[in-house]
Amino acid sequence: MEELLPPFLRHENISRLDDDVLFITDRRFLPFEKKEVACHDYHDAASAIKDMVTQGGGPLEVALNAFILTSRQGGNLGDAVRVLSSARPTNTTMKRTLEALLEEVRNGRDPENAAMEAFSYYDGLYDSVSDIGEKLIADGDGIMTRCFPEHTFMLSCAKAVRNGKDITVYVPETRPYLQGSRLTEPCLRAMGIRCMIIADAMNASVMSQGLVQKVMTASDLALSDRTVVNKAGTLSDAIVAAYYGIPYYAFSLSIDKTIDYSDIVIEYRSKDEMRNARGMKTAEDSADALYPCFDIIPSSLVKGIITKEGVL
Amino acid sequence: MEELLPPFLRHENISRLDDDVLFITDRRFLPFEKKEVACHDYHDAASAIKDMVTQGGGPLEVALNAFILTSRQGGNLGDAVRVLSSARPTNTTMKRTLEALLEEVRNGRDPENAAMEAFSYYDGLYDSVSDIGEKLIADGDGIMTRCFPEHTFMLSCAKAVRNGKDITVYVPETRPYLQGSRLTEPCLRAMGIRCMIIADAMNASVMSQGLVQKVMTASDLALSDRTVVNKAGTLSDAIVAAYYGIPYYAFSLSIDKTIDYSDIVIEYRSKDEMRNARGMKTAEDSADALYPCFDIIPSSLVKGIITKEGVL
Repeated sequence: MEELLPPFLRHENISRLDDDVLFITDRRFLPFEKKEVACHDYHDAASAIKDMVTQGGGPLEVALNAFILTSRQGGNLGDAVRVLSSARPTNTTMKRTLEALLEEVRNGRDPENAAMEAFSYYDGLYDSVSDIGEKLIADGDGIMTRCFPEHTFMLSCAKAVRNGKDITVYVPETRPYLQGSRLTEPCLRAMGIRCMIIADAMNASVMSQGLVQKVMTASDLALSDRTVVNKAGTLSDAIVAAYYGIPYYAFSLSIDKTIDYSDIVIEYRSKDEMRNARGMKTAEDSADALYPCFDIIPSSLVKGIITKEGVL
Repeated sequence: MEELLPPFLRHENISRLDDDVLFITDRRFLPFEKKEVACHDYHDAASAIKDMVTQGGGPLEVALNAFILTSRQGGNLGDAVRVLSSARPTNTTMKRTLEALLEEVRNGRDPENAAMEAFSYYDGLYDSVSDIGEKLIADGDGIMTRCFPEHTFMLSCAKAVRNGKDITVYVPETRPYLQGSRLTEPCLRAMGIRCMIIADAMNASVMSQGLVQKVMTASDLALSDRTVVNKAGTLSDAIVAAYYGIPYYAFSLSIDKTIDYSDIVIEYRSKDEMRNARGMKTAEDSADALYPCFDIIPSSLVKGIITKEGVL
């Protein structure tokens, strides 16, 4: 499976442990500059996560490496888990994984061994989820995504192409951080998959022209009632898709059964992000702005959630 | 009415004639730099329009000034009309206005006088269309727009506020040229109207939160069957608005009765625009992209077209 992944999504290009230093690839500069942030303990790693050095599935891998590093340094694993988990509260997968690891260690398991097994578990999960995703993709499909849908989506596309399916992916640039233009497009291109960047509100422009047969995104959170939380813009995509009778699917590594719709709070981030693009001013400093970071997509707009057990 | 307009929309800040030189405000640099392009004849003016120095309602005013300049220089007015009209083929208002002027001059009218009357005609039109627009705005309304809706929308908002209505305008930044962030937001702010920039695909994010009661945009073209052509993204807005039961209105200076739905061809512009924001790279040069410039909004999604005769 590793050989199907684009370079940005290979373990060593997300984060790597080099003796006593944990290096994290700084996604804020990709693909223009390849930089790594060096972390000397779990506090450094948590700060890097907070500063958005990595995002999506990145924090989980960083946290696993920070867990190993803390163990090697003879540090307090309980403290490490607490500090790392609070660095990205919306990433409940990271928190739940770290807490399970801690439990195993308290039951006598070797920390490094347990963390390495978690890496393998997620590799296997990416593989099985993408087997399900691949089956939904038909030869000739145009697929619209949003933001940076990482392993499960990328592998689904790679496997579809390997199985002889001809596909085209439409990639909204995903302002303000431009994950679509900076991460998704280079990954798809590196995999030899035809893809085209569009501006964020061109979802209806491409769908109205019959170019899109499926909308497929990752999910920051998926609930058992099929509610999905994902990058702002995804709700627009799902509504427009429904208007044209196009199915919307979200990938999920694990359905969160611990919360329901009313527990979801939409995070608002700094207005500054809406006034620049990679540091270039796009609006005046005195302009007011609104940056709702995520959308809640109600189950009525979600055709299915792609999990390792199948399409929910 | 002129006193209600924000500075960017006052005649002298769109284009001005200073003896034998026609100056055009370069909207590509607003609001960060105030630059003018100097034109010495109608060829220069047509080139400036082609190069997007001005857009929206700007080319019409430039063309009227270029008509006066040509007349003062004893140039061929027929040639001027042909060259100017072809500088922005989608702007049929400019073409029809110039052709009517030429006809009047051929019937013995003084060219400068006829052109000045056309200026006054449009000022009056902006005034009467915005009287209709104002009536649609209710106290407490949140209004979403798209791109740079210029005189009719701005004056409608200004009159609503003058009549004591409290309104908030949500302004999508409008990639790739960022007319929302660079032109619409500074205009509204200069008029003292509360407004907030959002990323382009956050239309559903704000509408789902109940922040928007009306969607109102300009139109590049409006047909008598109520089909609207406007900046890419407007179709997404109209679909999302319909989903939430929010009315979508488009302003029009004149319904084009000469063409129908099947005559509309969507213009695709340079992919380069999708790979940078104000010259800052947003994607790799080798990335493929799609830049459909306009959306066609079918009449079923259009609650009304705001014209001087009322809401169609």
